[in-house]
Amino acid sequence: MASEKRQKAIDLSHHLSDISRARETSPLKGLGKYFGRPGLISLAGGLPSEAYFPFSGISGDALVADSFSLKPTEQESSLSWIWKLFSRTNKEKTNTITIPKYVEHPAEDVNLAVALQYGMATGLPQLQKFIKEFVEKIYQPAYEDCTVMVHTGNTDGWSRCMQTLMNPGEAFLTEEWTYPSAVASSKPYGMHAVPVAMDKDGMNPAALRKVLAEWDTTTQGKRPHVLYTVPVGQNPVGSTMGATRKKAIYDVCVEFDIIIVEDDPYFFLQQGEYVPKASRADTADASSEDAWLAGLAPSFLRFDYQGRVVRLDTFSKYIAPGSRLGWHTCNPLFAERLERQGETSAQAPCGFGQSLITTLLNHWQMDGYTRWLHGLAIQYKARRDWFIDCLAEELHIEAATSSTVSFWKDCVVYDAYPKRSTGWLMSEKGSVDTKMLSFVPPTSGMFVWIKVHFDNLPAYRRIGEGDESPEIQLWTKIADAGVLISPGWFFAADVENPPTDEMEGHFRISFSNADFDTLKKAAQIIARETDKFFKA
Amino acid sequence: MASEKRQKAIDLSHHLSDISRARETSPLKGLGKYFGRPGLISLAGGLPSEAYFPFSGISGDALVADSFSLKPTEQESSLSWIWKLFSRTNKEKTNTITIPKYVEHPAEDVNLAVALQYGMATGLPQLQKFIKEFVEKIYQPAYEDCTVMVHTGNTDGWSRCMQTLMNPGEAFLTEEWTYPSAVASSKPYGMHAVPVAMDKDGMNPAALRKVLAEWDTTTQGKRPHVLYTVPVGQNPVGSTMGATRKKAIYDVCVEFDIIIVEDDPYFFLQQGEYVPKASRADTADASSEDAWLAGLAPSFLRFDYQGRVVRLDTFSKYIAPGSRLGWHTCNPLFAERLERQGETSAQAPCGFGQSLITTLLNHWQMDGYTRWLHGLAIQYKARRDWFIDCLAEELHIEAATSSTVSFWKDCVVYDAYPKRSTGWLMSEKGSVDTKMLSFVPPTSGMFVWIKVHFDNLPAYRRIGEGDESPEIQLWTKIADAGVLISPGWFFAADVENPPTDEMEGHFRISFSNADFDTLKKAAQIIARETDKFFKA
Repeated sequence: MASEKRQKAIDLSHHLSDISRARETSPLKGLGKYFGRPGLISLAGGLPSEAYFPFSGISGDALVADSFSLKPTEQESSLSWIWKLFSRTNKEKTNTITIPKYVEHPAEDVNLAVALQYGMATGLPQLQKFIKEFVEKIYQPAYEDCTVMVHTGNTDGWSRCMQTLMNPGEAFLTEEWTYPSAVASSKPYGMHAVPVAMDKDGMNPAALRKVLAEWDTTTQGKRPHVLYTVPVGQNPVGSTMGATRKKAIYDVCVEFDIIIVEDDPYFFLQQGEYVPKASRADTADASSEDAWLAGLAPSFLRFDYQGRVVRLDTFSKYIAPGSRLGWHTCNPLFAERLERQGETSAQAPCGFGQSLITTLLNHWQMDGYTRWLHGLAIQYKARRDWFIDCLAEELHIEAATSSTVSFWKDCVVYDAYPKRSTGWLMSEKGSVDTKMLSFVPPTSGMFVWIKVHFDNLPAYRRIGEGDESPEIQLWTKIADAGVLISPGWFFAADVENPPTDEMEGHFRISFSNADFDTLKKAAQIIARETDKFFKA
Repeated sequence: MASEKRQKAIDLSHHLSDISRARETSPLKGLGKYFGRPGLISLAGGLPSEAYFPFSGISGDALVADSFSLKPTEQESSLSWIWKLFSRTNKEKTNTITIPKYVEHPAEDVNLAVALQYGMATGLPQLQKFIKEFVEKIYQPAYEDCTVMVHTGNTDGWSRCMQTLMNPGEAFLTEEWTYPSAVASSKPYGMHAVPVAMDKDGMNPAALRKVLAEWDTTTQGKRPHVLYTVPVGQNPVGSTMGATRKKAIYDVCVEFDIIIVEDDPYFFLQQGEYVPKASRADTADASSEDAWLAGLAPSFLRFDYQGRVVRLDTFSKYIAPGSRLGWHTCNPLFAERLERQGETSAQAPCGFGQSLITTLLNHWQMDGYTRWLHGLAIQYKARRDWFIDCLAEELHIEAATSSTVSFWKDCVVYDAYPKRSTGWLMSEKGSVDTKMLSFVPPTSGMFVWIKVHFDNLPAYRRIGEGDESPEIQLWTKIADAGVLISPGWFFAADVENPPTDEMEGHFRISFSNADFDTLKKAAQIIARETDKFFKA
C-alpha cells in the first residue's frame, strides 16, 4: 500500500505540452501584492456592481443525507414522475439551504456577491476547502503537496489534461474497451488511443509493459507518456481495479515514465460481486461509513509517491450531471497549468452551481456526504442486482468460472441460452440450445457489458442483412422493439482494429436511470428479441 | 442598413480550421431516429436516476424588472454591504421564482429533472427559444438561418471561435488596443494579433483595408481571415462603433473574405456623449423600451448578409459574471462545429445556472428583460457621469475638439491640469501649468481610458526609477496610495510593439463596480498622486 512516509512530487515538467508551456502566467500575479490589502479600492477589472445581480438570494430544498436506505431491497420508488408530482404521502424529507447575496462574514460564508462575481479559476474557496479535505480523507494521496483544481466535469477535465500533457500527433494508452468520448475528444488534436489488453481487474500490467517495451519509435512514432484509465466501474466493462492491480500498473508507469490520468466518476458506485437472488441476504449494509470507505478499492493517488497521477473527480453521478462541476487532483505544477487553461475557457465553473453545491456539502458536512454516497452505492447495487435478476428470469442462465483466455479469465461468467421451463441455473448441457449471450456481472458503475455469440447464429443468418454487422442488426431489432442500448463497436479504443471479430458482438446496457419496472420490461424485450434473432 | 430581403448565409466552410474539421459528427446522430419515440426505453447512456439528484427544487428571490430607475440621479445606494445586510427600510422588491424537480409539462416548463440531467450541448430548449427570439428582435440578423449556440461566457466563446476558425501559426486582426485575455488565449496556439489603427468610432476601415491589401505572405505568413472586435464599450477605449462604421468594416471583410468575431459584452451599456454636470438635465429617460433599443448602435449581424459574423453574447454584465453563460450567433455551419466542440469541453453550461436564468427570463418576459437592461444602461451612465464629475472636481479640465491625428481626432478631448482655485473649465492657457492627462469620456461600457503625458514630466523625472517605465512608476504610486487601476501596456494588441511610445502612458479605470463614495475617493487619490508625480 502507500508508503508510510509521505513524499514530495518529483519534477515532471518534461511532460508538459508545448501549448501548455506557452500559456502565460496569470497577469493577475503582478497585482498579487495588492490583493487583499485592507481598504484597497480596485478599479482594475471589469466587474459589474453586485447591486445589479438580479437575485437577492437563492435557495434549494435539499434531501437529507440519509434519504436512501442502506437496505438494498428498499428500492427507489419505481413510480412515475406524475405520481411523484401529486403524491402527498411519498414526500421526500428535505431541508432548505439558502445563499443570500450578502452575508456578515463573506470570507467564510458562501454568498452570491462573491459566487456570482468574476472569480479565480480555482473556484469558490469554501468549495476548494471541502474537496481538499475530501481528497485527503478518502483518497489519501502519497505525497504532501497534492493540489485540487476545479473543472466543469470530467469531459472538460480530460480535455484539459490532453492539452496540458500531449502535443498533436501523440498517442496515449488506454483499456482496449474504453469511454468513447475520451477517444473522440483526442482525434481533432491528431492524438489517438493505443489499446492495452484487459482482464477481470481491468488493464493488464504485463500487457501494458509489453506495449511499452516493444514500442518501435521508427514505425510507431513517439512512445506514449500518458495513460488514460477508468479504473472503477470501467466503462463499458464494469470491472473494478483493486489495490494490487493499481500498484502493478503504477510501477510500470514509473518504469516507463508515464503520467496516469485516472478518470474515476464511478468510484463510490463500487458494488461487490453479484450474488444470485436466491442466495442473496436481504439485510442493510451494517458497516459504518468509515468501514464502507475503507473497503473500497483505493484511488491511484494512494500509490502515487511521485506525483504522476492526475485524478478526475466529478459531481455528475453523486449530485447531478448538470452540476458541470468536478476537479483535478494532481501535482502543483500540473495544477497551475490547468488553472491557466481554465482562465481562457470557462474561467470558473458556474457560480449558481458552485454556491448551491458548496452550501449543500457544508450543510451535510463530510459525514453526511459520505452517508449520501453510501446510500447511492446501495441503490446502484440494488439496480444492478434487479436488472440481472430480470435477465435471469427471461433467459436460461448457467454460471461457471471461465477458463478462456480473455478479459473474463477466472471470472464467474453467466452464459445465457433461450429460456427453458426448468428455470434458473438448471443445466441442460448437451442439448441443442444455443449459447446466445455471456456476461460477467459488473462489480461497480452503471453498466452491464454483454457479449453476443453471433458465431452461434444459424449459418444462413450470418450473411446478414445488407452490409450491417450482426451486432448492428440485433441492436436495430432491439431498438425497433423499444429499447435503446449501446452497440459494442462504439467502445473500442481503436475502432478500426477492435479487440474482437465481427462474429463476437457486444452491448453495453445501462441500469442507472430507468425505474425498476421499466428495467424489467427492457430485460424482457432484450431477451425476446435476442431469442428471435438467434432462432429466425 | 440591413438589406430589406433576408439572405441565406453563403458557404464559408473554407474558414474552418483543421482541428474543427476533424471533430466527429455527434455519435448521438445515429440514434436520432429513435429519440423522442413515445415509450422508448433508453438504456444507452450513463445517466443517473433523477431520483438521486439531492435537490427536490431550487428557487431564487428575483428583483423586479424595473428595480432600477430610468432617472440617472436616482443612483444605486452607495451604502456598504453591512448596511444592506441589516437595513429594513431599503428592501429590494423581489418575486420568488421556483424550479421544481418534476413538473406536469416537462417539455414546456423548466425543471431540475431535465436541467440537472445530461443534456445536449445546445443547452435547455427553453433558454434556446428565449435567446433566439431575443436575437431576432434586438439584433435583426440579415439572413434567415442564423443560429444560436450556448457557451460558458465570452472568454470560452472566443476560445471556441479561435479553435474553430484558425490553425496554429495564424494571425487575426484586432483593434490596436484590445482585451488582453483575447490575445493571451491565442498565444499558446501559436496565434497572434495584428493591430489595426482606431479612431473615435473604433477600428478604422481604411487602416484595415491597408493592412490587408499590403499583406505580404512571404514575410508575414498567411493573410489573416479572422477579425476580433469589441465594437461597443470598446475595451479599453470605451468607444462605440455605429452603423455607418460597422457597414464600412463589413464591406472590407467581404472584399477580403474575413470572418468577424463580434465580442459584444457591453452592447446594452451604451451611454451616449458625456455632458458636463452643469449642463446635464436631471430627468428620467422618457423613451419607451422599443425607442431605446432602436437608438442603440446596431450589431454587425444587422449587416451580415453573407453569414460571416460570429457574435458573442454573455449574461456576465446583465445577470452576473458567475452565470458563466452566453451564446454564439452565427451561420449554421459554424454553429454545428461549435456544438461539437462544446460536447468535448463543458458539454452543456451548468444546469443550476441555466434553469435559474431561464426561469428568470421567462418570468420577466422579453419586455421585462428589456426594461431591466434599460435600467442597467442608465445606472452605468450615471456611474460614468459621476466618476468623470469627480475627476473634474479634482483636476483643472479643459475640453476642446481635438485635431490631432490619433484615435481621438474630431473628439471632444478633456485635458487635465493641476487643480486651480478658478475651477471647472476656467481656462488658464499660457500658464506654466502642466498638461498631465487627456481623455475622451467613454460612450459605452465600463471604463475610462486616460492618456498620461509623461513627455510633460520635468526632465529629471523622465529618467525613471530603476528600469520601470513612467507608466509603471505612476501606476505603482497610485496602487500604493490605495487605488488599483489597469496599466495601459497591458491592452496593446501587440505588447512588443505598442501603438504608443514610453512617454505616452495610459490607464484604464473601471467605474463599474465600486460604490459612488468610493469612486469619489478614488478620483481624489488618482488626481493627488498624478499631481505629486508631475511636480516631484
